[in-house]
Amino acid sequence: MADPRAEILRQAAQLFAQKGYVESSLNELAAAMNYSKGAIYNYFSSKQEIYDAIIIFTLTGLYETAAKAVSEADPPVERLRQFMMAHARFLADNYDCFVTMLVGFSGMANSGLKDDALALRDAHEGLLRRILQAGVADGSFREVSAAMTGRAVLSLLSWMVRWFKPGGGKSAEEVAQEYHDLLVRGLLA
Amino acid sequence: MADPRAEILRQAAQLFAQKGYVESSLNELAAAMNYSKGAIYNYFSSKQEIYDAIIIFTLTGLYETAAKAVSEADPPVERLRQFMMAHARFLADNYDCFVTMLVGFSGMANSGLKDDALALRDAHEGLLRRILQAGVADGSFREVSAAMTGRAVLSLLSWMVRWFKPGGGKSAEEVAQEYHDLLVRGLLA
Repeated sequence: MADPRAEILRQAAQLFAQKGYVESSLNELAAAMNYSKGAIYNYFSSKQEIYDAIIIFTLTGLYETAAKAVSEADPPVERLRQFMMAHARFLADNYDCFVTMLVGFSGMANSGLKDDALALRDAHEGLLRRILQAGVADGSFREVSAAMTGRAVLSLLSWMVRWFKPGGGKSAEEVAQEYHDLLVRGLLA
Repeated sequence: MADPRAEILRQAAQLFAQKGYVESSLNELAAAMNYSKGAIYNYFSSKQEIYDAIIIFTLTGLYETAAKAVSEADPPVERLRQFMMAHARFLADNYDCFVTMLVGFSGMANSGLKDDALALRDAHEGLLRRILQAGVADGSFREVSAAMTGRAVLSLLSWMVRWFKPGGGKSAEEVAQEYHDLLVRGLLA
């Protein structure tokens, strides 16, 4: 195995997404990977530590993917599209991690990494807010609140974890494109 | 106690929302209510049955509250506002039930009430789609897909369970009003 640590996270996310965090055990994880439990302990000292690492991996990847996708040279409406497409694509590519995060983000309450997780979430949301503020500043967007509008954008994308299934029907990027069009143009004829 | 069944559901939702369904027990519920476990068994035969009843109560109330709030005499844009305000208000008034539902809707997988729950959810979404279709039909809305747009509306409202706290900052109805304005008018200046 090229990167056992990454493989443990991948398989653990799959298990947590299927069974829930509370009902999953390291014994099951080891069995699914054809590992000994001791081999897992070489990399992680507890189920909580694996869970925390999944959250940090996911939030780091989400932010970095979006930051890379957004080109400062483009107008804000296009930057917003790049942000939404990148978020949706990363969600589809790391679906089990997002399900794990949705169900158990509150499980970070006792984690030493909670502040890191919140900082990553704020970085992602900050990137989005700056796009919205730029659109208001250059007059292409109405005078909306970046906080409220950013929350709306992230709500649309985050709720995909509850209904979207990778590989069935529309792609995550098609969904993001439709949401972008709706938010930008609005409902009124 | 006027309605012990309703009181059991209310207290159980509070417990599930705080500790999670899996980690909650009927013993704890009984202790919190100053009941014997036997008294609870007079009304419900298992934790799963209580959970199922919370979901059905919530989905029934959500649909009925929205259906009552929507006045067919008003134009679609106002009907959409009524729907969103009613949904947000009911969520704020029954917050623990929504948290329970968010975390554990998949827990209905083995429930005999799963079809009832899906039918209620479809009724609520159907009400919303008809409002959107009416707006497209009378020319006040653009030619949007009612399915996609309805999903967007419900995503915005549903994700409130993850960040909104009743009694702190904006009211649920203020949030719904802002989301309505954003969706109706869009971002473009």
